[in-house]
Amino acid sequence: MLLGPDGVVLRVERTAICGSDLHLFHGDLGTPGTRLGHEFVGTVEDAGPEVETLRPGDRVLVSGVVGCGTCRRCRSGDPVTCELGGPRIFGTGPELAGGQAEAVAVPAADAFCLPVPKDLSVDQAVLLTDILPTGFLGAQRADILPGSTVAVIGLGPVGILALQCAWLFGPSRVLALDTVADRLARAESYGAEPLDAGASVQAVLDATEGRGVDAVIEAVGADQTVIDAVMMAAAGGTVSVVGANVNMALPFPMALALLRRLTFRVTLASIPSTWTALVPLVQAGRLRPEEVVTDRLGLSEAQAGYERFDTRCPGVLKVMLDPTA
Amino acid sequence: MLLGPDGVVLRVERTAICGSDLHLFHGDLGTPGTRLGHEFVGTVEDAGPEVETLRPGDRVLVSGVVGCGTCRRCRSGDPVTCELGGPRIFGTGPELAGGQAEAVAVPAADAFCLPVPKDLSVDQAVLLTDILPTGFLGAQRADILPGSTVAVIGLGPVGILALQCAWLFGPSRVLALDTVADRLARAESYGAEPLDAGASVQAVLDATEGRGVDAVIEAVGADQTVIDAVMMAAAGGTVSVVGANVNMALPFPMALALLRRLTFRVTLASIPSTWTALVPLVQAGRLRPEEVVTDRLGLSEAQAGYERFDTRCPGVLKVMLDPTA
Amino acid sequence: MLLGPDGVVLRVERTAICGSDLHLFHGDLGTPGTRLGHEFVGTVEDAGPEVETLRPGDRVLVSGVVGCGTCRRCRSGDPVTCELGGPRIFGTGPELAGGQAEAVAVPAADAFCLPVPKDLSVDQAVLLTDILPTGFLGAQRADILPGSTVAVIGLGPVGILALQCAWLFGPSRVLALDTVADRLARAESYGAEPLDAGASVQAVLDATEGRGVDAVIEAVGADQTVIDAVMMAAAGGTVSVVGANVNMALPFPMALALLRRLTFRVTLASIPSTWTALVPLVQAGRLRPEEVVTDRLGLSEAQAGYERFDTRCPGVLKVMLDPTA
Amino acid sequence: MLLGPDGVVLRVERTAICGSDLHLFHGDLGTPGTRLGHEFVGTVEDAGPEVETLRPGDRVLVSGVVGCGTCRRCRSGDPVTCELGGPRIFGTGPELAGGQAEAVAVPAADAFCLPVPKDLSVDQAVLLTDILPTGFLGAQRADILPGSTVAVIGLGPVGILALQCAWLFGPSRVLALDTVADRLARAESYGAEPLDAGASVQAVLDATEGRGVDAVIEAVGADQTVIDAVMMAAAGGTVSVVGANVNMALPFPMALALLRRLTFRVTLASIPSTWTALVPLVQAGRLRPEEVVTDRLGLSEAQAGYERFDTRCPGVLKVMLDPTA
Repeated sequence: MLLGPDGVVLRVERTAICGSDLHLFHGDLGTPGTRLGHEFVGTVEDAGPEVETLRPGDRVLVSGVVGCGTCRRCRSGDPVTCELGGPRIFGTGPELAGGQAEAVAVPAADAFCLPVPKDLSVDQAVLLTDILPTGFLGAQRADILPGSTVAVIGLGPVGILALQCAWLFGPSRVLALDTVADRLARAESYGAEPLDAGASVQAVLDATEGRGVDAVIEAVGADQTVIDAVMMAAAGGTVSVVGANVNMALPFPMALALLRRLTFRVTLASIPSTWTALVPLVQAGRLRPEEVVTDRLGLSEAQAGYERFDTRCPGVLKVMLDPTA
Repeated sequence: MLLGPDGVVLRVERTAICGSDLHLFHGDLGTPGTRLGHEFVGTVEDAGPEVETLRPGDRVLVSGVVGCGTCRRCRSGDPVTCELGGPRIFGTGPELAGGQAEAVAVPAADAFCLPVPKDLSVDQAVLLTDILPTGFLGAQRADILPGSTVAVIGLGPVGILALQCAWLFGPSRVLALDTVADRLARAESYGAEPLDAGASVQAVLDATEGRGVDAVIEAVGADQTVIDAVMMAAAGGTVSVVGANVNMALPFPMALALLRRLTFRVTLASIPSTWTALVPLVQAGRLRPEEVVTDRLGLSEAQAGYERFDTRCPGVLKVMLDPTA
Repeated sequence: MLLGPDGVVLRVERTAICGSDLHLFHGDLGTPGTRLGHEFVGTVEDAGPEVETLRPGDRVLVSGVVGCGTCRRCRSGDPVTCELGGPRIFGTGPELAGGQAEAVAVPAADAFCLPVPKDLSVDQAVLLTDILPTGFLGAQRADILPGSTVAVIGLGPVGILALQCAWLFGPSRVLALDTVADRLARAESYGAEPLDAGASVQAVLDATEGRGVDAVIEAVGADQTVIDAVMMAAAGGTVSVVGANVNMALPFPMALALLRRLTFRVTLASIPSTWTALVPLVQAGRLRPEEVVTDRLGLSEAQAGYERFDTRCPGVLKVMLDPTA
Repeated sequence: MLLGPDGVVLRVERTAICGSDLHLFHGDLGTPGTRLGHEFVGTVEDAGPEVETLRPGDRVLVSGVVGCGTCRRCRSGDPVTCELGGPRIFGTGPELAGGQAEAVAVPAADAFCLPVPKDLSVDQAVLLTDILPTGFLGAQRADILPGSTVAVIGLGPVGILALQCAWLFGPSRVLALDTVADRLARAESYGAEPLDAGASVQAVLDATEGRGVDAVIEAVGADQTVIDAVMMAAAGGTVSVVGANVNMALPFPMALALLRRLTFRVTLASIPSTWTALVPLVQAGRLRPEEVVTDRLGLSEAQAGYERFDTRCPGVLKVMLDPTA
């Protein structure tokens, strides 16, 4: 069951449902029948002979995105630019089954596992496998400077974590856009200005004397929210998309991007590259990712978890699954 | 005829036809009947009372894009982000007539005129008013790093100058794409590898072992070339568009941008911000923008100039117009 | 009394004593007999004919450092690199008398005055003329990244503001070093970890498992504190000095800088370049510079103010002087 | 003889003498009696069981600076910031004997060996083990921007390679300072302006209208040349030292660094971090490091090689040693 001599098998301790899993749940993406789940923490049960840094019994968190593990890019923590085959995501195809299970096989373990750092809770560890790194890179790639104005579109789990991370870059204001009241209230508790207006371009212009915002983080992934994100960026600004949009022909407003000299970024996260920054921030309590966890279910209840998350049940943000429950 | 107390009137010495003028020539953009031309050099004939740095008789080059001239952004050379009304381009509407004329009125002269620097020819000065800054910013905003691979799509005047500027950032290879033989030959003379295949994605993949290029500079502005630019970018790469594309619904390949973690930039150039870098490079002969000039006509022959350029007559790259001829 | 046609004369509303004034107070620097003071806010009484953006009655804050006002560097807010004569500081010589007076002449007013932004108090405006920009640039030039560890040496007014600004860059921890108890307590109230040990290298190593810190901000200016700053930097780290040290032969530990690959920066602040970032941060309450003001005196009591500050009277941080009291 | 299960033993094919070896040769640094040499290429004779990427028979070049090989910093190519024990240099102590020998043991081979890339000569490969990376990082850390002016002090092997690399960042002018005629001539052949005046501050000011240069690369390592480097930097500029200076009390001109807002960097090179950029540049002929090789000796003639290099024999730049000769 080892995926090669550099792989390990983990007994899964905790796993989570990610918004992007919904695409797979609905069959829009991935291979039907694949076991889902790319966010998980577990204990090493078996380790291949070439594994250098891990032993059975070690508790580790795992990057939800992996690569070959040996090319220079992978070694530096950036599997999205892996030179040997590109990135792969757990739970999207039969060759890399997901972690919503009792056990999971992880390839190239030295490159993609991190022993759970001291002082981190299990929930915090799970959130370092994808969603916090994704929110962080979304904020980082929005080119926020001290004094900037920011808008975050979509206050689901990734949006809330992107909002937390946006403050790491010193903005003066963060506008938070959604239509769900409890999500807006949560955003406000993190210092953002809630705009109960969906991704309304006009609401953002009204809040900024018509200028728009210097940085937009799109955390929904719908066509309209991506377009709105571009429309609300100020001249010289940046739009950073972390919502998963897989349209191959999204109608992009080029004329506006030209006149306003915009930068537009889309991000699949290179998870391990973020750990050096994020682990000490979580340890010090500067980031509190665990606050997005709202629901806990046993692994056998995963189906119900997907449905609750999918229908945006009031109050549901991040669903944890516990294979040992 | 002064455009305010901070304006000047210039006697035009030389002016040029720009590719973007063709949009106006065809009536796709701008106000019909407006005198065209945003690239020109001239001598100050009259200066308003608040002009601090210029006097009648001074020879100046002028930014083709202007703003209010007094906000902090304009003062720092960036009229595209002007806080009072945004950028304006000479020759696009009756309130700011173009420079393809015997005389032209320039607003906010302290901010947007530059006395012709010593050792610069008139042609070089004209090329600093738009096209060389645009090529430079296109290259700069492509995130080229030492050792990067680059593709330039479209080898008209802006493409050739973007190619010259790309070398300022230390790439290992520059691929040059066009279908016109003499343009390809010219690109090769600047150290690029010519690909006689239009904006062919496959040709670029073939030339890079399937990886694509780290940086793409799009200097055409057609929908397909913009899309091709995205398709040929390597994982982690950047696409920088300087071709004028004014489609408000360009079909953008989001899924690919996501999986490859791309950055996409569109640029209207803030001309004055580039002069500090470009003037010494031209003075030292590191950049040779004057080599794109292929045709010289009298001002009365402008119509013929537009037609020659528009039909891509063999050998025609940049057309200079001389009001004094 | 106007310093040229582009100058203004201000009636001074409030002014402050700066730590660097102590060098002048003691006669170590500057021209004896010069009226001191480079931090002030006032109302325009008279404006030269070439002043474009200000009129009598306008309330403005003024950059403590000025240049020619017309070169490209000055126009972009960076008088430290002024191409015509370099930077000048109010109150350091007879040609530019200071603002600790009832009235003061300001050259190149368009470049170096800022109308007091809405919602800012007079204290906040005064603090934007030097000390907050200096603290901000000290933090910015320390290369703090998300997750970094930081040490601030010296918790006087500049040190406290540098500490506030350090958080704009997302560090995980800020260590604050001084020997004065109330200054340490103040630093702790801003989220820093107080180290009651002066600039002790050992204390910093003990607090960081022997690594040292990624970024050090030196805000004292003594030889030993500068050297200690270098000694406590982690491999790959940066030392940013904002304390005024004017030694021409400070004994610098090159071997250590080599083995640890350090960056060392010294900063005279280009005040206007920081206003775009700082004004919205103060308006939004993200920075609270006014909290360093501890003492208020009439202008006639300036001598006493210098003495209190110089002897580090308990509780004295920033002394404001009011010419109208 | 393997240095651990992740080590290899190489049969040395070619090795070089480095300027910093002279410190060891003279006994100023390192452990007397240690076999010297940190620049070498060889063939794997034996590989430990945990080595993943290399096999006996592979030809590799080796980073002259190594670390633990497994911490995140080492994995990303930066052993200077190694979290487990810091950097170590071949040939400086008995625990890591140098490569001026028939065979050499290399620790953590996956992290610090690079299979000799295709199309690279043996000389080019040797020069990628230290001296070209050092010159490159020296140039990179000098903050050269398009249009900048640069000075390179010292035109030995590192200085010449730093000069070649400086052009990768788009400067308008590079001034080259030395007192040896053939070195000056060589610098001129690379497009630099030779100044036959040692590290003369006045000569640089004269050549730059009194401004100084934006970036200085110091490639000597003497106290005076480091100080001169600081003195010739323009306001806002950067001094990047790659000469090995191990003084713990170099008299540093703080007052000048303050008034000019300077950045000062000292660099021990993290060799592997540079290979991604440098290998394609050498392959494409954009960098030609092999041109610094002036002398070839058998290994048994090393002593003579050191003496020739040490006395700056006319024409001697880089000495290659061949253990198979």
